[in-house]
Amino acid sequence: MKIGLLGFGVVGRGVYDITASRDDMQVAKVVCLEDIQLPDAEVTRDFQKVLNDETIDTVVEAMGGLHPAYEFVRSAIEAGKNIVTSNKALVATFYDDLLPLAAEKGVAFRCTAAVGGGIGWLSELERVRRVEEVSMVGGIMNGTCNYILDSMTRLGLDYGEALRQAQSLGYAEANPSTDVDGIDTWHKLILSANVAFGVSLEKASVPAAGISRISAGDIANFKANGYTCKLVSHGTQKDGSYTAYVQPTLFPQGALEAAVPTNFNLITLDGEVSGRQSFYGQGAGRYPTAYNVVQDCVSILAGKGFYCPYGKKVSADNSVKLRYYVRGGDNWIAENAAETWGDAVVTNPVAVSEMHAWLKNNPAAFIAAIAE
Amino acid sequence: MKIGLLGFGVVGRGVYDITASRDDMQVAKVVCLEDIQLPDAEVTRDFQKVLNDETIDTVVEAMGGLHPAYEFVRSAIEAGKNIVTSNKALVATFYDDLLPLAAEKGVAFRCTAAVGGGIGWLSELERVRRVEEVSMVGGIMNGTCNYILDSMTRLGLDYGEALRQAQSLGYAEANPSTDVDGIDTWHKLILSANVAFGVSLEKASVPAAGISRISAGDIANFKANGYTCKLVSHGTQKDGSYTAYVQPTLFPQGALEAAVPTNFNLITLDGEVSGRQSFYGQGAGRYPTAYNVVQDCVSILAGKGFYCPYGKKVSADNSVKLRYYVRGGDNWIAENAAETWGDAVVTNPVAVSEMHAWLKNNPAAFIAAIAE
Repeated sequence: MKIGLLGFGVVGRGVYDITASRDDMQVAKVVCLEDIQLPDAEVTRDFQKVLNDETIDTVVEAMGGLHPAYEFVRSAIEAGKNIVTSNKALVATFYDDLLPLAAEKGVAFRCTAAVGGGIGWLSELERVRRVEEVSMVGGIMNGTCNYILDSMTRLGLDYGEALRQAQSLGYAEANPSTDVDGIDTWHKLILSANVAFGVSLEKASVPAAGISRISAGDIANFKANGYTCKLVSHGTQKDGSYTAYVQPTLFPQGALEAAVPTNFNLITLDGEVSGRQSFYGQGAGRYPTAYNVVQDCVSILAGKGFYCPYGKKVSADNSVKLRYYVRGGDNWIAENAAETWGDAVVTNPVAVSEMHAWLKNNPAAFIAAIAE
Repeated sequence: MKIGLLGFGVVGRGVYDITASRDDMQVAKVVCLEDIQLPDAEVTRDFQKVLNDETIDTVVEAMGGLHPAYEFVRSAIEAGKNIVTSNKALVATFYDDLLPLAAEKGVAFRCTAAVGGGIGWLSELERVRRVEEVSMVGGIMNGTCNYILDSMTRLGLDYGEALRQAQSLGYAEANPSTDVDGIDTWHKLILSANVAFGVSLEKASVPAAGISRISAGDIANFKANGYTCKLVSHGTQKDGSYTAYVQPTLFPQGALEAAVPTNFNLITLDGEVSGRQSFYGQGAGRYPTAYNVVQDCVSILAGKGFYCPYGKKVSADNSVKLRYYVRGGDNWIAENAAETWGDAVVTNPVAVSEMHAWLKNNPAAFIAAIAE
């Protein structure tokens, strides 16, 4: 396999390092803006050089961002090249465009590193589907949020301190919105559900609530009631009906989710016959992420193109009712309140869709579902 | 694929059920002692009928036990049939005999369900090895022991009550020795290390300590010091040197291992580039186990024969030193004691091999390593 590598940042450099010792694949050209020299690959700023190189059969996209990643990936598919990417935003955003195009052109399109970093999550969904239906996917998919919540819970930091610490360790961006507002988890949920259920989820039907409004007082309320807060995704299918949402969620202190430390991920599926399975590992970082990019290249060499066929468009129906912790409520929340926890309330069961609609109009509030 | 199914107990029946709806495989003959009738498979007591049926390409062994499972599997390999089994005792015991023979005869030999039941553990090790070296494998591999230890810890039961409850739920055998003495975990560790490291571990070099001597007082000592006890396996490779042992181990109460409930498993690997990964799921039971048997059949159809080449014979060197909780010690333990916990002591670091040799001569004692 001859690889055209787009981007030479955290992930791109890792892919170059891991492939360097392999006989079955070789990074032939690297497209990046930095002035670097590599002993065995041509470095260029010009993507056309990759596109026009007929010896390059596979493009590894490790640039991040939507543009020009989308245009580059699309032209590469048009040119008949396989695609491997770790870019969850790209794949989730252009799923309905890129996946059918890749199928039409007969090229492989894999993105295992896009969800769970070093965890073989999407590839395991691919394996699971050979034997059974998956009824649920979800879990802790964002290491930045887990790091912040874990630091607040174990070390007693407030949100701002925990965020700054995550930033100084390189776990959070200068502008942390994609992580802390749940957008990264939202992309990963959409991808996971699409693969697990063989569908294409309508993105507008999947709400996401983040953690940026959480306070040290909230954490104290959770501890006092025996809970630990995690940002989790949740998607289900049953009899042709779907749910999908991202929200802070309270787990009993002895639960597996509650024990996930620092920047780790824990992603779970419910299989029809295999039961509940969870996968724990490094959800980000140079080598874990690059590792699954290289795994995808090996899978392509072994003849695997996609995780599942491109599926029909479906919407999530989030009418399922959950109890919520809400701080910063109004009259509607007061009407639905069942308990008081410090300066917040715990509601009676409320439809997920209703609660997220309410949050949109009350963006200063903090909500967390209580895991059943 | 035409399957000859040996055994129609818990696992065999599950395999029959799951394959019934598939087009790519069919149970053609079932060998069992019960008088049953099946709509689409011939039931016989005579294994020769499977052996002599040239249309049967794959034998699924779900009888359990060493004999006649060994003789049947061996003759099936000799006759050129692929083997799928969930029998960890069989594969661990006859690894050096059956694996080279299968390779020589060019048949597939898979046993994913033998470790972790419904967890795709051995198959994930197979995938991991495509890209990186594995430096550590291990974890909670026996659901019966986890159920007993969890009931003692969460419900305050004593060992006898917890065992009886496990027996009444079908999690433990009438004679529970294989589980509670660590033999089942020992088989699973040997298999896991063989696949992960590409070796064949000398079984006599791998010691196992079990949980049958644990008391409610021990559990109270662990709680008082912030620990939870689990029966775990541990195997490592580094620079051509190996460790491998099974023993009760104390984890801090917030650790992931400590949160594993009831009869679940949690199995972990350390990868050179992917980092630490853990796999959580149902380690036993009809459908989880049968699920991975069927996965192996699908893998064989996809051209996968074994997880790794049969590797060289190696011995574990368990000179690594750990601190141990010991109740029922003697002078040697007293000489090595660092702390007192109730009626027990915690030692200074002692070589694993030395502690297990001591335990052999002091079988009424209970030991548990303290996780580093």
